[in-house]
Amino acid sequence: MIGRFRSGDEIFYGDIENGRVYPKGGVPAGIFNLSELRVLPPASPSKIVCVGLNYRDHAEEMHMEIPEEPVLFLKPPSAVIGHEDKIIYPASSSRVEYEAELAFVIGKRCKNISASKALDVIAGYTCFNDVTARDLQYKDVQWTRSKSFDTFAAFGPYLASPDEVDISDAKIACRVNGEIRQASSTANLIFDIPYLIEFITEIMTLEVGDVIATGTPPGVGELQREDIVEVEIQGIGTLRNEVV
Amino acid sequence: MIGRFRSGDEIFYGDIENGRVYPKGGVPAGIFNLSELRVLPPASPSKIVCVGLNYRDHAEEMHMEIPEEPVLFLKPPSAVIGHEDKIIYPASSSRVEYEAELAFVIGKRCKNISASKALDVIAGYTCFNDVTARDLQYKDVQWTRSKSFDTFAAFGPYLASPDEVDISDAKIACRVNGEIRQASSTANLIFDIPYLIEFITEIMTLEVGDVIATGTPPGVGELQREDIVEVEIQGIGTLRNEVV
Repeated sequence: MIGRFRSGDEIFYGDIENGRVYPKGGVPAGIFNLSELRVLPPASPSKIVCVGLNYRDHAEEMHMEIPEEPVLFLKPPSAVIGHEDKIIYPASSSRVEYEAELAFVIGKRCKNISASKALDVIAGYTCFNDVTARDLQYKDVQWTRSKSFDTFAAFGPYLASPDEVDISDAKIACRVNGEIRQASSTANLIFDIPYLIEFITEIMTLEVGDVIATGTPPGVGELQREDIVEVEIQGIGTLRNEVV
Repeated sequence: MIGRFRSGDEIFYGDIENGRVYPKGGVPAGIFNLSELRVLPPASPSKIVCVGLNYRDHAEEMHMEIPEEPVLFLKPPSAVIGHEDKIIYPASSSRVEYEAELAFVIGKRCKNISASKALDVIAGYTCFNDVTARDLQYKDVQWTRSKSFDTFAAFGPYLASPDEVDISDAKIACRVNGEIRQASSTANLIFDIPYLIEFITEIMTLEVGDVIATGTPPGVGELQREDIVEVEIQGIGTLRNEVV
């Protein structure tokens, strides 16, 4: 498991083993206790590409057609927060919702990657909460505003490398104040990860650190201020954020 | 007028006067002839926020309703090209179109800026071509794919500072192979720039270098391979790109 951390003024990636953090490349020097470091989002993306309606039963609950091709949208880097950061409920929405998703981080700059070679460009997997102002999403038709508020792209806590986790059938869950709201498996994705990489890289160059969020299972619902929302994916971990 | 340039391995901003370039801060040392420098896009944005349907008659030609609030969408930084760079016609589209737009670049990191103070955050104005795969835009409903292909966010050539240009009523035109296709004035914007800044910064933090494109006037139409497309705005200049 790899994390991104801050200690004083230094920001660094480190390997996590038994509650201790070993900085990549030995900088800064030393071994840290995980508990003494500030956990940052495990990538610093130039863009966040999200896939909509990628679980059949979620498309049905949204009363939207199951798409023939992936539906893409972007979140801006300004929306990024990490584990234990706060989700800020914007004044202009009266219905903010969680969406638990499996995300992956790009490890190699790439364009026009075929599905058969797609897994080579993945640095690792993480939990993602595609926070959405549902009222504005319906109002605008275009999804950008509703999904681009500051703090609406939560991901982490860490990155599981491809050899640490089997994401072909990993349980994915969302809990609000400890109560299960979404429970599915990544086996239910309509468009699988190799296909998504082929589809997206036909359009745009992906940079190291870019984040791709693969869509949410059914069970989306409202968040209230003071709620604690958790996204847990088997083999990866639990992303926890409070709504304020 | 300010430009961004490359000379050898160095990338720098410089003031342009009478065909000569004076590097900002004196680095690199010396004065350059404009003709000996590679012109880069005049900003390196962390995000590009675009406004759709912001000219009444363009909304009508698209058979779309005039929106009550700005319609926003994002283009990824990977789509950026500058003056004289090539627009690449993607294999997955059979209808690529130009959209001439006035854009501005952010000069101060900002959030929650009121319209009355909005002009303070603008570093300058430039020409923007919001290249769009129109067939995919209609097919997808969400506009992201159709507007996010590499090379689909052309802007430049330079940045006119707010005291160099009056953008309250500047002529804006698009020419394809020298023939006028769009001709309007920025006076016809439905949502003016101060309002756009207030609206966008209620949603997201804008970073220095971020680009906001304000929408296109009527007259959008097709581009073919080998076309030369130009966006000219009075007091700013002409952005020229070839389609390949």
